[in-house]
Amino acid sequence: MITETKSVQFDSISLDSGATLTPVEVAYETYGTLNDNKSNAILILHAFTGDAHAAGQDKETGNPGWWDNMIGPSKGFDTHKYFVISSNVLSGCRGTSGPGSVNPATGCPYAMSFPPVTIADMVRLQKMLIDHLGIKRLLAVSGGSMGAMQALQWAVAYPESVAAAIPIAGTARHSPQQIAFNEVGRQAIMADPDWNEGNYYGKRPPARGLAVARMVGHITYMSDQSMREKFGRRLRDQNQFEVESYLRYRGSQFVDRFDANSYLYITKAMDYFDLTNGRTSLSAAFENVKSRFLVISFTSDWLYPSYQSLEVVRALRGRNCDVAYCELPTNYGHDAFLVNIAEQAELVRGFLASTLRGVER
Amino acid sequence: MITETKSVQFDSISLDSGATLTPVEVAYETYGTLNDNKSNAILILHAFTGDAHAAGQDKETGNPGWWDNMIGPSKGFDTHKYFVISSNVLSGCRGTSGPGSVNPATGCPYAMSFPPVTIADMVRLQKMLIDHLGIKRLLAVSGGSMGAMQALQWAVAYPESVAAAIPIAGTARHSPQQIAFNEVGRQAIMADPDWNEGNYYGKRPPARGLAVARMVGHITYMSDQSMREKFGRRLRDQNQFEVESYLRYRGSQFVDRFDANSYLYITKAMDYFDLTNGRTSLSAAFENVKSRFLVISFTSDWLYPSYQSLEVVRALRGRNCDVAYCELPTNYGHDAFLVNIAEQAELVRGFLASTLRGVER
Repeated sequence: MITETKSVQFDSISLDSGATLTPVEVAYETYGTLNDNKSNAILILHAFTGDAHAAGQDKETGNPGWWDNMIGPSKGFDTHKYFVISSNVLSGCRGTSGPGSVNPATGCPYAMSFPPVTIADMVRLQKMLIDHLGIKRLLAVSGGSMGAMQALQWAVAYPESVAAAIPIAGTARHSPQQIAFNEVGRQAIMADPDWNEGNYYGKRPPARGLAVARMVGHITYMSDQSMREKFGRRLRDQNQFEVESYLRYRGSQFVDRFDANSYLYITKAMDYFDLTNGRTSLSAAFENVKSRFLVISFTSDWLYPSYQSLEVVRALRGRNCDVAYCELPTNYGHDAFLVNIAEQAELVRGFLASTLRGVER
Repeated sequence: MITETKSVQFDSISLDSGATLTPVEVAYETYGTLNDNKSNAILILHAFTGDAHAAGQDKETGNPGWWDNMIGPSKGFDTHKYFVISSNVLSGCRGTSGPGSVNPATGCPYAMSFPPVTIADMVRLQKMLIDHLGIKRLLAVSGGSMGAMQALQWAVAYPESVAAAIPIAGTARHSPQQIAFNEVGRQAIMADPDWNEGNYYGKRPPARGLAVARMVGHITYMSDQSMREKFGRRLRDQNQFEVESYLRYRGSQFVDRFDANSYLYITKAMDYFDLTNGRTSLSAAFENVKSRFLVISFTSDWLYPSYQSLEVVRALRGRNCDVAYCELPTNYGHDAFLVNIAEQAELVRGFLASTLRGVER
């Protein structure tokens, strides 16, 4: 499956902050075929540093998509049956408008003058894309981590437009620990003199700060046990521990594919996301939802622990929503949604099939 | 109890690396009175960023010691009964020789030319101090976190000189996750241009990098739950989360009292510490120990999880050592050994009393 990232531009988008972004571009990919009554579309929502290239082999680079083991012919999101859409989030750096985009009013990159963005804004842009593709109602929305937050936001903001939501390893709001880890990453970036208040485009980017931020991230994505299994206390050259070389490598590699300002904007969007905001309870947030839910979490995920998924499940059940919950046993920690595929794919496959039967009935 | 940090200088110390440090200075404090047969001395071993000022009010600053709630009249380490000694570790920055000390051969601070230091080297210097004080056998050695590592090293290296060891919230060797968090801190420091390969004495220190390192540390010292209880998602000025302000404050505060190069040296000493090194098993490391043990861990400590203390307990039991183990229930995470005092003090008090009875019998 050879894939290619496409792009569509809209005149403008109104944001939660009150700002209007003019114009706005969104990068996306599609896999499979939209059926005649447009009832088989699934929107995939990426995690923090993901992009539109969720599946297949990229036409230019040959790189596989970040969820290629879940999306494709006969896979969890079966492209024989479903039309799968994946887009890069607003304020990202992989084709969708973000701080690295050129502000037409100035001819220069927005940098920190890019307006603040919320998870709801990201979802609003996705809704514009779906409308553009002529799809009235998605069969499902699904994603892990920040993708799960977007899936919940979809169900809350556009209840008529989503038949099912599959939030994986996510939460309805960040805990102070999750905020704290993001804040360390932000401080590491802003402590790098090359960050220069965000004005580094065309110059040297804050590579050292961004690498440190990414190292922290990687620790939180793994579990204590998976690190012990993967690295132990093994040493490499010059008495460095293998885990140190690994983190440094992943940190330096990240710098080539991610923009530091997008790191700041997207982590802020995650931290401020709170479905209970302005409401009396999480259950109240789900007052008007019409979709069914499959909620998945992982035993060893200490960054997005199961209690956060259970909070969502309880609130949905309090609204008599159709919700299935599964905590999958794994050592992979938060990374499990990307790695631990067999059981997750099985759950998704069954849930989507029954959703499709319901929709076509 | 007004206290004062004293200092003693020795001609030289031989280090595990093969290097000799000439001369070497050690900062220490004592509390209580050494009895006539010198059988009531207890050595307190500080954690990563601690110092010799463990108890009482400092004569100059008025600051309480870092374990003041555990050490003093009628406290866990009861200074009515015991003579308590506390010293700053080798390679530290609070009076004991470290990278910030002046190298007499050059007249300049050692910086990164300070020889690498191990936990065993730290303990070797403490042994020199104890000898200097005329104490043949310590009633007990005790400390939390890195202090626990030193306590274990004491029991292994100087079996004749320790009647009892109380390692709290520690380990016989760092896991890759613990190494990884330390490595993030080191990379944050070394990414700061002001670090300048360690040569910043008399200039601007790498304050931003050191602050980021400290922020990561603070997250790992607390638990998910204690952060939720302490901060929740409360906001402060300018839409900052309280947890963000707290971490930034603690980070910037740390810069005034800690030397970045000491951060590098001490974390490396912790990471390389491994009692199984060169031995067939952890149990083999304890072959010659003669002391009794009280091992304490905390339920919510995810940085030094209970399984690491249990590994030590099992290995000691495999050698038929006299070992008591207690996992204390608490939400405070790794910080619990500094905070969660009542039960810990009670355990220590009883254990020390029975050790003293055994010694005097």
